Amino acid sequence: MNKNLKELADLSGGQLKGDGGVVICGVSEPDTARPDQICLVASKKYVEAARQSRAGAFIIQQGLPDLERPVIISDNSHLVFARIVEIFAEDAGTFVPAGIHPSAVVSKTAVIGKSVSVQAYAVIEENAVIGDNSVIFPFVYVGRETKIGRQALIYSGVSIRERVKIGDRAIIHSGAVIGNDGFGFAREQAGTYKKIRQTGTVEIGDDVEIGANACIARATLGKTRIGSGVKIDSLVQIAHNVSIGDNTIIVGQAGVSGSVVIGKNVILAGQVGIADHVTIGDNVIVEAKSGVHKDLAAGKIYFGYPAREQKEAARNLAEIQQIGKIRKRLKEIEKKSGI
Amino acid sequence: MNKNLKELADLSGGQLKGDGGVVICGVSEPDTARPDQICLVASKKYVEAARQSRAGAFIIQQGLPDLERPVIISDNSHLVFARIVEIFAEDAGTFVPAGIHPSAVVSKTAVIGKSVSVQAYAVIEENAVIGDNSVIFPFVYVGRETKIGRQALIYSGVSIRERVKIGDRAIIHSGAVIGNDGFGFAREQAGTYKKIRQTGTVEIGDDVEIGANACIARATLGKTRIGSGVKIDSLVQIAHNVSIGDNTIIVGQAGVSGSVVIGKNVILAGQVGIADHVTIGDNVIVEAKSGVHKDLAAGKIYFGYPAREQKEAARNLAEIQQIGKIRKRLKEIEKKSGI
Amino acid sequence: MNKNLKELADLSGGQLKGDGGVVICGVSEPDTARPDQICLVASKKYVEAARQSRAGAFIIQQGLPDLERPVIISDNSHLVFARIVEIFAEDAGTFVPAGIHPSAVVSKTAVIGKSVSVQAYAVIEENAVIGDNSVIFPFVYVGRETKIGRQALIYSGVSIRERVKIGDRAIIHSGAVIGNDGFGFAREQAGTYKKIRQTGTVEIGDDVEIGANACIARATLGKTRIGSGVKIDSLVQIAHNVSIGDNTIIVGQAGVSGSVVIGKNVILAGQVGIADHVTIGDNVIVEAKSGVHKDLAAGKIYFGYPAREQKEAARNLAEIQQIGKIRKRLKEIEKKSGI
Repeated sequence: MNKNLKELADLSGGQLKGDGGVVICGVSEPDTARPDQICLVASKKYVEAARQSRAGAFIIQQGLPDLERPVIISDNSHLVFARIVEIFAEDAGTFVPAGIHPSAVVSKTAVIGKSVSVQAYAVIEENAVIGDNSVIFPFVYVGRETKIGRQALIYSGVSIRERVKIGDRAIIHSGAVIGNDGFGFAREQAGTYKKIRQTGTVEIGDDVEIGANACIARATLGKTRIGSGVKIDSLVQIAHNVSIGDNTIIVGQAGVSGSVVIGKNVILAGQVGIADHVTIGDNVIVEAKSGVHKDLAAGKIYFGYPAREQKEAARNLAEIQQIGKIRKRLKEIEKKSGI
Repeated sequence: MNKNLKELADLSGGQLKGDGGVVICGVSEPDTARPDQICLVASKKYVEAARQSRAGAFIIQQGLPDLERPVIISDNSHLVFARIVEIFAEDAGTFVPAGIHPSAVVSKTAVIGKSVSVQAYAVIEENAVIGDNSVIFPFVYVGRETKIGRQALIYSGVSIRERVKIGDRAIIHSGAVIGNDGFGFAREQAGTYKKIRQTGTVEIGDDVEIGANACIARATLGKTRIGSGVKIDSLVQIAHNVSIGDNTIIVGQAGVSGSVVIGKNVILAGQVGIADHVTIGDNVIVEAKSGVHKDLAAGKIYFGYPAREQKEAARNLAEIQQIGKIRKRLKEIEKKSGI
Repeated sequence: MNKNLKELADLSGGQLKGDGGVVICGVSEPDTARPDQICLVASKKYVEAARQSRAGAFIIQQGLPDLERPVIISDNSHLVFARIVEIFAEDAGTFVPAGIHPSAVVSKTAVIGKSVSVQAYAVIEENAVIGDNSVIFPFVYVGRETKIGRQALIYSGVSIRERVKIGDRAIIHSGAVIGNDGFGFAREQAGTYKKIRQTGTVEIGDDVEIGANACIARATLGKTRIGSGVKIDSLVQIAHNVSIGDNTIIVGQAGVSGSVVIGKNVILAGQVGIADHVTIGDNVIVEAKSGVHKDLAAGKIYFGYPAREQKEAARNLAEIQQIGKIRKRLKEIEKKSGI
């Protein structure tokens, strides 16, 4: 497919500068781009690579130096980039076989919407519901009474246990597990543990993406709740009874313990850990690898273990670097003062 | 199902206080409870929510303030709660189709016990043994000569490689892998690595629970051993030749390196890492995100990286907060003393 | 199978010392070894256990004390051990059924090499290519146009998405996911996130091993690259557009963020985290649980979070232990000097 730059600017909401007639047939990275491709220049760091590139045009963040080539300018160049990538992306749907593969095991009581693709060796149990236009890849297990909304993409090897609810336009990557038992045990006198039956479930909003091999446990009682627009990366663990507000982002290998409440628009960076029963306010950012064991106030950035406000955490790190100097000064004082 | 409070007290081993005739038909959380439901009040923190609740009765930890409603009192309210949840839990077994699904691929030489459920698209290889009353969900792979005991629940998508032994009443959650190769390589002169064939196996005791997408590697030689009553959470990694004592708990995303020996009744909290060849004594608690690279003495609590006894670790953290003050005092001394 | 010690020394490249006629029929660990078995003594630490052992012979690291039994000596005893384990290992291939299992769903347009084993319930999509002598276990998903080289072992439950390339002799353990979408989103004005379509792919060299439940994301554009000889452990996450040099080792639960460039012969130890866009030089070692957010120079050892050169990190740790003493000395000075 071809588009000229003027069309791309109009479709993506960016502002054209230079020759709108340049024909573009794909998006690439600066070092491998051809003259019929466009590249993203999101920050100063990429300007030099852009200048060296053979790309025919650029999507450029407002305020960056002129590249002397046709560009689409935006104050949100990432968003314009996302829209243009989408224009050129092969539509995954094109490759999806329609209908129910003869090898799929679909219960007679399951309700399958219109234009759903259920691929080879998917298993859909009693009274499960799959919304219109959803795609169920091979080796997906959908437990009884689980409901998946419309336009879902459930990749190969995903397990969704019984009685889970998932909204529209979900994307769930391979190997993710939704609705496994929460990790709850009561200690018995002998030192053994008795399992606390996990009779609750998981409820997930619309437009949620869940990463490969991520695990979202069902609640002991009630529900583990994932708000709409939440994006969860690979290998993330969400424990039982957690509640996550809309449009929160949880990056790879982060872990959220039982009964944690997370607000809206929060970012938990990679490998972060949140202790159980903690509450995290809206718009909080927790930086990578931090460990949180107390409530975090809304709108602030936290770092470290135990996590502190970023400035304080940075000051602590800097102070540690001063200890050697302190010891020298102390020695000098002791020497000179004869104490 | 209905039970009155007197019956529940008798069945759960708690002590009735108040009207034993209250009819209860389920367990709930305080904020959503109906008058025919019972809730847990395990600590002071939950007393106020309990008072606001519409619940008809409570399971209450001994020593907490009176709630002015019928209660079951216990010095182990979690255990009483676990028992009462179980009474009301729908029996998972009820929903399990009996027998071997026609699509399951079961080797002729496999030995399948009585009342086993082997569901759609399970694969059971040569000479594998599945004990009585066990349930094998879809997409479970049981390698040749692997033995699984009685009353096991092996959820969808679990892979158990060849020659593994698993005791009775195992619960293995979706996506877990048991018996994958240990991570062992010998460096060759060219800087490449030669694989050390992992010819050992994994041996798991009775009453073990293994979390979703957890990985337990087989030994290089000999056995990786998981004792009875061990509970392993989601996304935990147990490396080759590890030995874990009975009733030890390993929380989400923790990792145990090769040849580590862990005692009985140990708790490794979330995201803990244990370096290879370390020995950890009985009854140790390692707090979340700690990194252990030395042996840990029995019966103590450890924290931090490198992990130290909790008191020492806490002192270190507090000391770091003092560095700023120290620098001020030093400056003052230097000023006043003219040094 | 039996070999005498002379034969084993010749086959493994080690140096015989003592009676070459001792008949050996397997490799074991010192505490369980029989007189017809050989054990590894790689360091001083194992000498005492070796002396107590009933083993008939040892593979011993050069320079260790005499064990008064027949030995094979080497300055790379691990490599000799790897070779001897291989000699005695049952050949996994022996147990692999040849040909395509009738239940496998293989596209007519897929190209399957000679002597390939495609086991029950594998799914191989359009135009996929599987090289000669490869083994595809049950529940493996190979997406359209994906190419897997010769002699690959792809264990049960692995998902490989579309258009991925994997070289020869790959070993991919159960539950691993290759080619899942990178985690890329552009923030929209409303606070919601728009998915950036991940249209790139993954390219993996020869002789790569990928651990159980590890995740390797496809690139946004272009390729995520894994060099030849790279060994990746269980539960590791490799994000989109990462590039990893040949013979690099990444240990369990480590995470590598987007667009990171890692050199050759690097070792990332367990639970390490690398922030996005960082460059790591050749021959770097990053110790366990470290967090890296800046470029690392080649050939050095790093530790801590933020990661510093090991010596500096160790000094920092030691300095923190001194703060208490510093405060005491300060107090004394203040007291004695009257300030």
